[in-house]
Amino acid sequence: MHEIRVGLLGLGTIGTGVARILLEQQELMSRRLGKRVRLVAAADRDLSRDRGLDFSGVRLSDDAMAVACADDVDLVVELIGGYEPARSFVVEALSRGKHVVTANKALIAKHGEELFPLATANDAALGFEAAVGGGIPCLKALREGLAANAITSVHGILNGTCNFILTKMEREGADYAGVLREAQELGYAEADPTFDVEGIDTAHKLAILAAMAWGAKIRFEDVYTEGISHITAADIAAAAELGYRIKLLGIAKPHGAPAGPEAIEMRVHPTLTPVDAQIAQVSDSYNAVMISGDFVEHTMYFGRGAGERPTASAVVADIMDIARVCAAGGDAVEQLPPPMGFTAEARREIPTLPMADVVCEYYLRLMVRDEPGVIAAVTSILADHRISLEAVVQKERSAARSVPVVMLTHETREGNLQAAISRITSLPSVEDGVLILRKETFGA
Amino acid sequence: MHEIRVGLLGLGTIGTGVARILLEQQELMSRRLGKRVRLVAAADRDLSRDRGLDFSGVRLSDDAMAVACADDVDLVVELIGGYEPARSFVVEALSRGKHVVTANKALIAKHGEELFPLATANDAALGFEAAVGGGIPCLKALREGLAANAITSVHGILNGTCNFILTKMEREGADYAGVLREAQELGYAEADPTFDVEGIDTAHKLAILAAMAWGAKIRFEDVYTEGISHITAADIAAAAELGYRIKLLGIAKPHGAPAGPEAIEMRVHPTLTPVDAQIAQVSDSYNAVMISGDFVEHTMYFGRGAGERPTASAVVADIMDIARVCAAGGDAVEQLPPPMGFTAEARREIPTLPMADVVCEYYLRLMVRDEPGVIAAVTSILADHRISLEAVVQKERSAARSVPVVMLTHETREGNLQAAISRITSLPSVEDGVLILRKETFGA
Repeated sequence: MHEIRVGLLGLGTIGTGVARILLEQQELMSRRLGKRVRLVAAADRDLSRDRGLDFSGVRLSDDAMAVACADDVDLVVELIGGYEPARSFVVEALSRGKHVVTANKALIAKHGEELFPLATANDAALGFEAAVGGGIPCLKALREGLAANAITSVHGILNGTCNFILTKMEREGADYAGVLREAQELGYAEADPTFDVEGIDTAHKLAILAAMAWGAKIRFEDVYTEGISHITAADIAAAAELGYRIKLLGIAKPHGAPAGPEAIEMRVHPTLTPVDAQIAQVSDSYNAVMISGDFVEHTMYFGRGAGERPTASAVVADIMDIARVCAAGGDAVEQLPPPMGFTAEARREIPTLPMADVVCEYYLRLMVRDEPGVIAAVTSILADHRISLEAVVQKERSAARSVPVVMLTHETREGNLQAAISRITSLPSVEDGVLILRKETFGA
Repeated sequence: MHEIRVGLLGLGTIGTGVARILLEQQELMSRRLGKRVRLVAAADRDLSRDRGLDFSGVRLSDDAMAVACADDVDLVVELIGGYEPARSFVVEALSRGKHVVTANKALIAKHGEELFPLATANDAALGFEAAVGGGIPCLKALREGLAANAITSVHGILNGTCNFILTKMEREGADYAGVLREAQELGYAEADPTFDVEGIDTAHKLAILAAMAWGAKIRFEDVYTEGISHITAADIAAAAELGYRIKLLGIAKPHGAPAGPEAIEMRVHPTLTPVDAQIAQVSDSYNAVMISGDFVEHTMYFGRGAGERPTASAVVADIMDIARVCAAGGDAVEQLPPPMGFTAEARREIPTLPMADVVCEYYLRLMVRDEPGVIAAVTSILADHRISLEAVVQKERSAARSVPVVMLTHETREGNLQAAISRITSLPSVEDGVLILRKETFGA
């Protein structure tokens, strides 16, 4: 039976999961593939930890570069994460014509445009299904399953930590800081949670999805990114009263014809989603991606977005797809779908729509002094900027000097809204800042 | 640019959708594929109807067999439906080494085991993504995206007509007959709805999913099949009171090791699903398939399970997958994943678990005379068969002579339950039959 020899860089959480599948699920994989996938080498800085696996027959090393370049390795799995040295290992492996599979969204989002041509030039495949949506085969769905469609929108809950925190805040009426601490204790959030809670991880994934959806070059730096750390229990309760759940969404939409857009809108922010929308049902640390197309209408892909076993499942699926086209007499990488779903020649630079030109409905929360004429002053500024309101909710007076006011706008250009907000915040009767949340509606 | 020439059999709803994509989405498809997919011929008995498409350059014919066998056709799309003559057209096309793509679940479920080897023997590909879940790329997910997993269960809402009817019954407290009539008027249900509402369509799809999940030969005849026509508004209300929604599910599970099961459980029936389960959120005519694996845990795929445009999306995705491996110098079908996800040699006959050996929790509804000792008689029969109860709900007395009683059992072998039920129905104080619904719990 023909054999593919795998070298693994990184034996952390996901690396251990991948090694586990390769060592323990051999026979099932061969029955599906008609070939053997053999783990020949693995590198990690810490080889002393017991991973509960029998590594006999596997060359263990603390030299990742040596494994990435080894002659007896056909396919390198990069699970170190981050930009460097992961990038260098991948570049070296590809340059030697070795196939690469990675779960590293930061690497693909930032260096993908360097890596794709390098892979092509060396007849090597580059798989990164695990980089978006963890175990959910959502990139395969977008690239292959929906290939007949012009994509009309992408909406994703792409970060399990944020979804866990928001779900818990909603269920328990709890505040952000306490829930974050709990998430950290449970291992759902890192000691430094910035990457997750500030939306950067979601932005990496969204940049990949958007580029794949429309045949664009990846533009991670262009993604408008807001996290969840400023969301309060009061906002979640106010949204619920209006029929919405707050989710951190990555959103991408084409401007102009979906088959060949002139610009792409990419934004990550806490979003009011109608409680009965399919994506609003996705709770706890689960992820989901809703992808809509001009023929397929709405589709959604749901599952675990992180974790040893689910992420390893996606990594090994990529290995198997690549192994399938590696015949004894040479590889046939050109038989695989192009990594980003469009041929290299067809991919192009598509500008990102400036955030000021994005059109949304908005939820505004402001604290105003409880005196006559304040609401009138605020609404007249909004009217000046051609912003009309769908709802205004003013809570009953309390002993406090100031009261919260919540407003929902109709569709508004973000630029107009920001201009209005900067005037509103300068009103003496408006205290603190104005919290702005964007709202999305869904066909399903 | 290399070109794949397509012949289309059937210009009904889905056929028109496929023609529409092939004629109107040419440029986008070529940018993804690096090849051209060209519709060269189409056959239908009725060529007079205006389909709103420009068929210039396409040979239209009322002779499907001629198109299936034409020398200038590389790939035949069968969208006639049903067993015959669809089977004959597909057999002739495959025998001539033409690739075939079909949306015909009946054909694959019943004749797949004849067609797969025929395709292999003639170096032809056979695609049928559209046969299960309409536009949702769920077979691709199972076959490729989850290929590293031993599958632990499959649960599907696979028939949009049934889901539409059950959703409407629940929302409006309406009875089956009226909602069916409405569904027929809206075009969601056929004039003769038997295939849909009696679960046969779901059983076709489940048989395909189960065989693909575990490398088994397809055994459509073995699927236990119950429809929804006996469900009343009262059952839906009683289930809701207990925290469940009634869904028509196709359910498949392995017995023994999931990587190589000794038997497979396959059943289609109305099912009590907890209201907060992800699959219970799938409403109206939407479909969803939840597939769980030993590494990936729970995943779910959601979208339109029928209709011109969504189903055409899946058909064309298959065409593109096949076109990708058709190079100018000859095809490379062996580079495609095997159609059923396992190599031909690895696929085997796996027995179907007899329904009597299936273990479920049950919902029982019976009408009993309102007299002392009746419940005691019923529960003592259940106890005789080692069936223990989780809940008994007896509605308050009314003027009527008989009252409904609802019972929820703990896990019970179906054989034991059926034996108990046949004794219970013979009690003089129990009127009419006993309605039996099965309950499922989900990890997500």
